[in-house]
Amino acid sequence: MSASFPSDSVGLVTPQTATFESPLALACGKTLERFELVYETYGMLNAERSNAVLICHALSGHHHAAGFHSADELKPGWWDAYIGPGKVIDTDRFFVVSLNNLGGCHGSTGPGSVDPQTSRQWGPTFPVMTVADWVHSQARLADRLGIERFAAVVGGSLGGMQAMQWTIAYPERVANAAVIAATPRLSAQNIAFNEVARQAIRSDPDFHDGWYADHGAIPKLGLKLARMIGHITYLSEHSMGSRFGRDLRSDQLNFGYDVEFQVESYLRHQGDTFSTRFDANTYLLMTKALDYFDPAGQYDGDLAAALAPADCPFLVVSFTTDWRFAPARSRELVNALLRAGKAVSYVNVDSPHGHDAFLLPNDQYESIFGSFMRRIDAELNGGTN
Amino acid sequence: MSASFPSDSVGLVTPQTATFESPLALACGKTLERFELVYETYGMLNAERSNAVLICHALSGHHHAAGFHSADELKPGWWDAYIGPGKVIDTDRFFVVSLNNLGGCHGSTGPGSVDPQTSRQWGPTFPVMTVADWVHSQARLADRLGIERFAAVVGGSLGGMQAMQWTIAYPERVANAAVIAATPRLSAQNIAFNEVARQAIRSDPDFHDGWYADHGAIPKLGLKLARMIGHITYLSEHSMGSRFGRDLRSDQLNFGYDVEFQVESYLRHQGDTFSTRFDANTYLLMTKALDYFDPAGQYDGDLAAALAPADCPFLVVSFTTDWRFAPARSRELVNALLRAGKAVSYVNVDSPHGHDAFLLPNDQYESIFGSFMRRIDAELNGGTN
Repeated sequence: MSASFPSDSVGLVTPQTATFESPLALACGKTLERFELVYETYGMLNAERSNAVLICHALSGHHHAAGFHSADELKPGWWDAYIGPGKVIDTDRFFVVSLNNLGGCHGSTGPGSVDPQTSRQWGPTFPVMTVADWVHSQARLADRLGIERFAAVVGGSLGGMQAMQWTIAYPERVANAAVIAATPRLSAQNIAFNEVARQAIRSDPDFHDGWYADHGAIPKLGLKLARMIGHITYLSEHSMGSRFGRDLRSDQLNFGYDVEFQVESYLRHQGDTFSTRFDANTYLLMTKALDYFDPAGQYDGDLAAALAPADCPFLVVSFTTDWRFAPARSRELVNALLRAGKAVSYVNVDSPHGHDAFLLPNDQYESIFGSFMRRIDAELNGGTN
Repeated sequence: MSASFPSDSVGLVTPQTATFESPLALACGKTLERFELVYETYGMLNAERSNAVLICHALSGHHHAAGFHSADELKPGWWDAYIGPGKVIDTDRFFVVSLNNLGGCHGSTGPGSVDPQTSRQWGPTFPVMTVADWVHSQARLADRLGIERFAAVVGGSLGGMQAMQWTIAYPERVANAAVIAATPRLSAQNIAFNEVARQAIRSDPDFHDGWYADHGAIPKLGLKLARMIGHITYLSEHSMGSRFGRDLRSDQLNFGYDVEFQVESYLRHQGDTFSTRFDANTYLLMTKALDYFDPAGQYDGDLAAALAPADCPFLVVSFTTDWRFAPARSRELVNALLRAGKAVSYVNVDSPHGHDAFLLPNDQYESIFGSFMRRIDAELNGGTN
């Protein structure tokens, strides 16, 4: 079986489900009486249970971060470029845990699950989640797996916020944190883009105030628009320009409203694909979690004070052409960490690919991220390198 | 009556309509057999008919650039900060002409007009317009007003493209051109934003393939989304941040999907207002005109070759925080003009207001734009200053 996969792939992986029967109190004031988390693991947990790495996913991500679910699967997990034998997050050395967050639409308890109190789908009544809620639920999963302390908690974008939050909420359970292409809080412009995406979904007549499942409907048009808007912010102006420029789909202008420019075709395709594979209520919830995240908020805006509990070395990575969460936002985090007296390595990686760069192969990124992970591995094994 | 208006206002103005009965051939291959243009004028045409200034409007603009339509009107025309007695475009010195472009929704022939061939509204069958088409129609208006040559053709954003096109199509009729916050062509990212806005409008069930008037409907939700998306690109990240930051509408998070952040409230309000005052088919048409504009396209991308016919001094203005049409896009134009041997003054005005800066008071902008206009006035009157 494994012969059909690349040698640096974790190969065939099977999602697992953990069920939690004790209540989880949420930031919004509600409580989840029980919940399930879908997760995958790659590599082996060592005897000391000290080599676990937690992968936190971004807005539209999920538990399938590496490998393949079947021999027929064309694309591997979303971070396969960085997770596998001999890769940056080396599954020959680390036990990697990747889950679908609560509120997601890939198997963990979310708006598409049945509310035990009503015996119908949660739909729009599913509680709004925060990054802190996710981190608490991830800690439960760690307990279940017998992981007292992660060798590293790692994430890009919204995943980076979770890594940050872990160091604040559970400093004793995080030996290292990698915060990639993230920000300590959204700007007004970031929130504005999220709000337009939410409005697109909520104003779709097929949304039915979030009860679309009851109507046998899917708010595809809204989801499509939301993804198109989001996608523009994931790419850099330069990468969009060099990929598509002003190239036309046909030889001449058609002077109508059908697709004319390649970039229009690409965006429509991205939107269409997304609208068939992602849940609208989950999209709303994920964007709200982004908007809410603001650890400094409880400290009069003092991020260093918010990060004071953290007790681990940090790797912070930004990308030169990322305008969704620009390098300046990472530097804000780095400065706060330094003010708080933490150990932090920071690199602004040269990449033309905008925010999406955190998912893509890049020598400089791999080299620095790889060194960070090898140092962790060396320390686990009592060596110095 | 005028006592109720500020002393530097052109005061009460009345739109006029010019009807053109001879056919206008369009870039798309179709012909408008007849058309009307609504326009306003401010100031007096001199005896030599040499002091006329043409104002070209941007995406959602119109003929009402300065003054008031009634004593009750709360807000003056859209460029009142720059047009009036003693202002940058001094109506004591210049005869200012401002029109609503063809395809518009403020009185000129457009999708809401009746197609003489079918005796019903044009709706979505109204021809797609180009910047070149507009310039030809504006030349007809100049003929009607007895203006052989404009002392200046002036415009911001899409209006700046029209000023550029005037110098290419009618070099002998343009004594000076001011191209403000514009670009010689849209980038893939610019087109992408326009396409999302168009998709929002066209996927609104009330759009009815553009025949919404026949259904007594208005695609308000689509227009609202389109405006919200556009509006994000008009403001700088900094101006959005300093105006709204992460300020909440109430004391605490509501953990729902109602408005929470001030920036959400502002954007929804902008979208709602726009959706009741602007026409959907016109919005589609205006964004297409933006997408199509590319004078260098016919010259293998050589903008200097495209601008070779121009025979006037240029003023080019960009704004430091404009990310819709960034300063680099203006510099592209400036470099092409220089390569083509034209006289060009360029300034990158320091402003926190993003693309919208071209509409707002700003000392540096007023000073340089004012000098440009005073030099034109001085030359008209045979003086040197």
